[in-house]
Amino acid sequence: MYRDPVQSLQPLHGVPVAMRPLRVGMIGIGTVGSGTFRVLARNQAEIAGRAGRGIEVVMVAARNLQRAAGIVGDGVVLTDDPMHVATHPDVDVLVEVAGGTGPARDWVLAAIAHGKHVVTANKALLAEHGGEIFAAARQHGVAVAYEGAVAVSIPIVKALREGLTANRIEWVAGIINGTTNFILSKMRDEGLDFAAALAQAQALGYAEADPAFDIEGIDAAHKLTLLAANAFGSPVRFADVQVEGITSLQGVDVACAEQLGYRIKLLGVACRREEGVELRVQPALVPAAHLMAHVNGAMNAVMVKGDASGVTMYYGAGAGSEQTASAVIADLVDMARLDGTHAAQRVPHLGFHAHAMNELPVLSRAAVRTSHYLRVPVHAGSDIKSVAAVLAVQQVPVQQLVLAAERSGAKPQVLVLTGPAAQSAIDLAVHALQAHPAVNGAVTTLRVEELAS
Amino acid sequence: MYRDPVQSLQPLHGVPVAMRPLRVGMIGIGTVGSGTFRVLARNQAEIAGRAGRGIEVVMVAARNLQRAAGIVGDGVVLTDDPMHVATHPDVDVLVEVAGGTGPARDWVLAAIAHGKHVVTANKALLAEHGGEIFAAARQHGVAVAYEGAVAVSIPIVKALREGLTANRIEWVAGIINGTTNFILSKMRDEGLDFAAALAQAQALGYAEADPAFDIEGIDAAHKLTLLAANAFGSPVRFADVQVEGITSLQGVDVACAEQLGYRIKLLGVACRREEGVELRVQPALVPAAHLMAHVNGAMNAVMVKGDASGVTMYYGAGAGSEQTASAVIADLVDMARLDGTHAAQRVPHLGFHAHAMNELPVLSRAAVRTSHYLRVPVHAGSDIKSVAAVLAVQQVPVQQLVLAAERSGAKPQVLVLTGPAAQSAIDLAVHALQAHPAVNGAVTTLRVEELAS
Repeated sequence: MYRDPVQSLQPLHGVPVAMRPLRVGMIGIGTVGSGTFRVLARNQAEIAGRAGRGIEVVMVAARNLQRAAGIVGDGVVLTDDPMHVATHPDVDVLVEVAGGTGPARDWVLAAIAHGKHVVTANKALLAEHGGEIFAAARQHGVAVAYEGAVAVSIPIVKALREGLTANRIEWVAGIINGTTNFILSKMRDEGLDFAAALAQAQALGYAEADPAFDIEGIDAAHKLTLLAANAFGSPVRFADVQVEGITSLQGVDVACAEQLGYRIKLLGVACRREEGVELRVQPALVPAAHLMAHVNGAMNAVMVKGDASGVTMYYGAGAGSEQTASAVIADLVDMARLDGTHAAQRVPHLGFHAHAMNELPVLSRAAVRTSHYLRVPVHAGSDIKSVAAVLAVQQVPVQQLVLAAERSGAKPQVLVLTGPAAQSAIDLAVHALQAHPAVNGAVTTLRVEELAS
Repeated sequence: MYRDPVQSLQPLHGVPVAMRPLRVGMIGIGTVGSGTFRVLARNQAEIAGRAGRGIEVVMVAARNLQRAAGIVGDGVVLTDDPMHVATHPDVDVLVEVAGGTGPARDWVLAAIAHGKHVVTANKALLAEHGGEIFAAARQHGVAVAYEGAVAVSIPIVKALREGLTANRIEWVAGIINGTTNFILSKMRDEGLDFAAALAQAQALGYAEADPAFDIEGIDAAHKLTLLAANAFGSPVRFADVQVEGITSLQGVDVACAEQLGYRIKLLGVACRREEGVELRVQPALVPAAHLMAHVNGAMNAVMVKGDASGVTMYYGAGAGSEQTASAVIADLVDMARLDGTHAAQRVPHLGFHAHAMNELPVLSRAAVRTSHYLRVPVHAGSDIKSVAAVLAVQQVPVQQLVLAAERSGAKPQVLVLTGPAAQSAIDLAVHALQAHPAVNGAVTTLRVEELAS
């Protein structure tokens, strides 16, 4: 296990003396890795001034050694064997920024077994294997830090694990995928449909050639898994998240939401109820006057409701080379500021100590209770009160019921904002509406999140 | 000096064993003190689960002992002598939430001299005596934590000192006084003038009976002092902040700003330029589409621009009993998570170690360079180009120049948005305008902050 020399712990008027640099081994020197290397070099003096000692990349594993050499220059050992970095005695901290889940899991577990701290920005890895990885880290007395895994430039993991520790967290709601927020902003601002907005996002580099991971909500669900675990002290449970992406979202609903005074955002929501927690990612209506409605383009934002703090919000870039580096290096500075043992023990991986973790039950989709938006196509001349009557039978409270503004060529449509209702009740109401003679096509429903304090 | 028993440092699968509670002595049991006591009691299990040990208030100093007894109940030692708490051997951490600067300075220095950590939400104390207090804490190997001193519920000190450590911070801009933001929101939303909005704020408890501290910008300047020191690693220098409040702000300027697509906010700005830093508090125009323009009522928000992170923003309540308690307790949890020595050494008081602090020069008012808003009353029938001509002579770039929308009974007015110009150039331009025959009354100027990334 890595330990600093004992004399490094003796302070001289607050300045730690004889502290050797923290030695970093990095796997991956792509977008995030090269950004991390660049920022560490550029802000070397500033970072050491904050950390109390230097932070040096001593070893890098990369597929293309020639390309890697062009980035890191001389003085850094290069290898094409990630396991060599993960296990090398000259490495204090492994920075895993290669991505993927299978091999990355092996590297991270090997580094932990060799007594090294780990910093990673790999949300998929932690959402899927976090339980195993954090347990191994506890056993070996090392830290696994992952600020870069959620809403990269925003220190939201730190806010949850350290800044809001006084609070019982009631809910967390975040715009935590930049690609989909860019697409939704385009749909609203330019009246584009989903396919056209996605094409623009791809052309501008905001979406991958294969965008499934983002637009189907998987990436947001990975991040929500980590946020929820830190908020509630519950284990990471990616498989329990209800995930709905934006691929079937229609431009007409963006416009109709606007008519009602709302905007549509892909939200990750973790909410504590009496009966358990809700874990869900879905496109949802947010009040247009709400701060979250003004988070545009590829930006991210996370709101947290604590019982003492009230609502706080954290906003920043959700992707990018140096933006992610900012988080990775903050994790390294945290480690550099303490010797190995204390760095590992200071903050538990998910905010709560192992004995205080809660196995909170996760509510089923049917039990989730929110307000809803319904768009109901009706035959011309239908009485819109018939829609209200169907909802009343299903005991779905109605807050607003209006005709959609006319669009050329569009069928008449009734827009409904309901009060809080269980998804099961909404599903029954939709079923009944589809069978009603006044209804002329598929009913669309979306959740409404008031995000009130 | 306070030290945990040695066995408290031995981990057992990550759970610290045999850690006795952190013992807190509190001076003041008013709004913040009672909130802190209440939240510590209510969330006891959750807080211990995060901190790894309990946090107990063992002693409270209060003026009114009977009232204090009603709040803390049995089991807490009460005294009317603050110094007794500050120096008592049963106290590990002094929580100073009495306010004021003279006596509070003595208590805090006494606690430090007795080897106790200090947590305070007292911005005036730290803005004015921070240099002395932090030096004493360094000398005695204790920590002075103050998350509650700036934008209470928002962990912004932690974000600056720990979350953004990779970055060279370029600027910080914040809405950091809830009272004035409430007044400005009222002026805009309801078209009130300053006096009427202030009266509403007082009636609703958002402003003190003597509101000078808030409305003259002093409170915001205290907080800006602490933000700037942490952003740039410069000493706390309250005397160097240029402070302008909102007492002379007119309703007409709120309306005219709106016409140009801006809103007026009282901003604290710390900005690093080549020649030094700007430290200033002033009412300023912010683009209406900008997130900061949507921070309404008594809420606070701080934006930080880092060279790697880009712009991040932090939003939350700026005042309140439990909101401040949230910050005070987070500081206590930080301390509880480490033994005394390491808690003191982990993060330097102003983010940078003493040897790395920068004595950055502070720019004079005349040298501050921003865009400006000018409202120029003119005689009916004047050629508005004459205003442009005067500005051109003074080499003030003009970005927009329009007639103000007509208001019943108001003189004709020309509104100007300038490009970036030094305050000295703006002052000369205003001087020239006042002497121009077309100008019919006092010219008003306000800074414009685009807050662009």
